[in-house]
Amino acid sequence: MTRFDILAMGNAIVDVISSETPDFLSARNIPHGCMRLIDADEAETLYAAMGPGREISGGSAANSVVGAATLGARTAFVGRVAADQLGGVFTHDIRAAGVHFDTEPASAGRPTGRCLIVVTPDGERTMNTYLGACQELDHSNLDAALVAASGILYLEGYLWDPPGPRAAMQAAIKVAREAGNKVAFTLSDVFCVEGHRADFRDLLTSHVDIMFGNENEVKSLYQTNDLDAAMAELAGHACITVVTRSEKGAVVIGGGHRYEVGGEKVARVVDTTGAGDLFAGGFMAALVEGRSLPDCARVGCIAAAEVISHFGARPETDLRALVAHKLG
Amino acid sequence: MTRFDILAMGNAIVDVISSETPDFLSARNIPHGCMRLIDADEAETLYAAMGPGREISGGSAANSVVGAATLGARTAFVGRVAADQLGGVFTHDIRAAGVHFDTEPASAGRPTGRCLIVVTPDGERTMNTYLGACQELDHSNLDAALVAASGILYLEGYLWDPPGPRAAMQAAIKVAREAGNKVAFTLSDVFCVEGHRADFRDLLTSHVDIMFGNENEVKSLYQTNDLDAAMAELAGHACITVVTRSEKGAVVIGGGHRYEVGGEKVARVVDTTGAGDLFAGGFMAALVEGRSLPDCARVGCIAAAEVISHFGARPETDLRALVAHKLG
Repeated sequence: MTRFDILAMGNAIVDVISSETPDFLSARNIPHGCMRLIDADEAETLYAAMGPGREISGGSAANSVVGAATLGARTAFVGRVAADQLGGVFTHDIRAAGVHFDTEPASAGRPTGRCLIVVTPDGERTMNTYLGACQELDHSNLDAALVAASGILYLEGYLWDPPGPRAAMQAAIKVAREAGNKVAFTLSDVFCVEGHRADFRDLLTSHVDIMFGNENEVKSLYQTNDLDAAMAELAGHACITVVTRSEKGAVVIGGGHRYEVGGEKVARVVDTTGAGDLFAGGFMAALVEGRSLPDCARVGCIAAAEVISHFGARPETDLRALVAHKLG
Repeated sequence: MTRFDILAMGNAIVDVISSETPDFLSARNIPHGCMRLIDADEAETLYAAMGPGREISGGSAANSVVGAATLGARTAFVGRVAADQLGGVFTHDIRAAGVHFDTEPASAGRPTGRCLIVVTPDGERTMNTYLGACQELDHSNLDAALVAASGILYLEGYLWDPPGPRAAMQAAIKVAREAGNKVAFTLSDVFCVEGHRADFRDLLTSHVDIMFGNENEVKSLYQTNDLDAAMAELAGHACITVVTRSEKGAVVIGGGHRYEVGGEKVARVVDTTGAGDLFAGGFMAALVEGRSLPDCARVGCIAAAEVISHFGARPETDLRALVAHKLG
């Protein structure tokens, strides 16, 4: 019997969300719909230019475990905030969602990470991330007993970028493997895949049981413009691979089968932040419950549809009731 | 020619909004729908019990001038935050909305004020306010030239409670009066009226040109259960008095006339926080534009209806376009 169903390692971030016109992005040469890392100076300049914000806890893997927790999974999170007010906000919010979180706050002086999110009228989010204290995660923050006691270790590709957290994740994978637990991984963003393609392919080959990515990420992983070619490569691995396709739903490859699941209808897309995160959280929560792979993808789509119908990447509706209503 | 149309003095607060069931309040003997002041210890205990939050800048008079600014009024705000992250959030948000704000942050150690807002499924908000640095506003923070250069000085009753800010407001009223400017005042809450009834009546008699209150506040002001009796008392004053009546709209008494304006229809009331604030901001912005008193109330109702249709007490829609669409 494990203590937790899912333990996530990821960036501990508070989102700062403002609504802007597309001109706001083009005037600053910020590519629409992407995620990019910015330093403290740029974070200050960009924030000063942004309109009034909403601060809502975020972080990709953190959003996923919050989603999984609200669906009934027993979850934990490892990531670093600083001992400041935004760190307090992140800590409160993830614990209040029922996720176990006790990574010691960093004290090296960098503030809690934040993601300056520009949402355009099409609902698309453009993310400008200042990692701050997130980068100070290292293997000394890793509780091996916690990893060993968690059925699924879930890792975000974003966290592969800074070296300390990457080493911590590599150590965690080893512990999880030795304990006979599953390892799940999300490719996170094309820029992550581009920066760490060899590492990510290696993870898929031998270290990961479940991989999440969107169409662009898997195409980038195999350096092809042909989704079917990328999917054929993915089908060659022993792990479950899940490719999300925005409003078109998702494709799951696992156990020698390929399943296609349609997307959920959304009355109005307000803010796409967290769609992939909530998909992964929903998928894993359903997997833990013993649902079939296509049903896992359906739960993922339901969770993603909820989170894009409002600002912020954390669910605002009772996801468990929503899933029960839609899937039983 | 004034430099600003409206200068507001008020609490500089960041709202922390969570959604809870009514049981959450009753289990803690917190009266549903009210506002109360809490100390640092209770703020910590209550926050720990609350679900995941959204941090959105608030403060009653601050919300009003943000609303007025988005409607085109030239506005400024005086209030105190601390030099901390939430103070930075408040400062950014109010400036980003186009409001002039340069009150020096307090450095006495108390953090930026925050309001822990519990929103129940009926959309009603229950506010638990930790004033923190707000209380450190005093007359040394008051720029007399700024007051003299602002057509309307708008004061919130909430700020009458702590002695330093009260003295600062009294000094500001004197400056505004001497400059021949208008003074507007909101009763804010029944608890403010109960605590300062004599002061508030005195303000109405000789120091205030525009008074805002809701039905319960004006009934409390004249210690009557009969709204008509309270309105008759109000009609005896030379000032414009505006009584808001939630979904029923508002009553305005001014220039020897009484006007009744119906409320705006709202598809779904999500969070009533800021309804009165945005009403006052909309009313004043319209007054500055030279609209008639009933049209000022209509603009107030339109602004209030927008703000209760989403979480947070700051507008999310282009209020100017909304008013142009509805009133021309």
